[in-house]
Amino acid sequence: MSCPDSARQNASPRVVLRLELGSKTRLGPGKIRLLEQIRATGSISAAGRSMGMSYRRAWLLVDSLNHGFRQAVVTTQHGGRRGGGAELTAFGEELILRYQRMQSAAEQAVAGELAALARVAGDNHGQP
Amino acid sequence: MSCPDSARQNASPRVVLRLELGSKTRLGPGKIRLLEQIRATGSISAAGRSMGMSYRRAWLLVDSLNHGFRQAVVTTQHGGRRGGGAELTAFGEELILRYQRMQSAAEQAVAGELAALARVAGDNHGQP
Repeated sequence: MSCPDSARQNASPRVVLRLELGSKTRLGPGKIRLLEQIRATGSISAAGRSMGMSYRRAWLLVDSLNHGFRQAVVTTQHGGRRGGGAELTAFGEELILRYQRMQSAAEQAVAGELAALARVAGDNHGQP
Repeated sequence: MSCPDSARQNASPRVVLRLELGSKTRLGPGKIRLLEQIRATGSISAAGRSMGMSYRRAWLLVDSLNHGFRQAVVTTQHGGRRGGGAELTAFGEELILRYQRMQSAAEQAVAGELAALARVAGDNHGQP
């Protein structure tokens, strides 16, 4: 690998969770970040833009969230397509909190193993 | 969504871990499954094939694993390209075990939250 040791050492090891909650309901860091950005910006398009995502992609992710749970996660004004504002529902806020709690619980549960694995990660210059 | 209730209910909720161990060393369920298949088949191409993956894709994943740690994960015979056998190193076996332990620990840590979220997952027929 081409990165210098300093760059490698600066990247803290971490665990990322993807939740599979049903045959079609999945929740990972990307959707959670999009929800946080919608809360921050009040707009699906601005939230998507802040993540380098097209409006269409952001809208499809919001739509999949809204259909992935028995309650809506994001509400939109003016018909919900371009132009209107967007905000999280109380359930959307709850979803972020629950994901964050699970992330923290998992981090604590695997911290020792993760640190041990990170110590043996790095470039293996020898041939396998 | 078009899936019937029975299909949705049969999909058990689960958490999937992706480990980020350094700036370029990542480990998730796909690579772990590939290692398990290499152990089972003694071949990178057969392992890839069992996962619907091209030989090239499987080889690149193995290469990234071998370079992602200070020790080799998979060894190959006859130069390591097409035709030769492949097997896990002791470190490769350890990697699978460590990932499985982390998976189990994380599952236990988030079980309550995961079950609660899965109960509210499902099709929201109303408009958001």
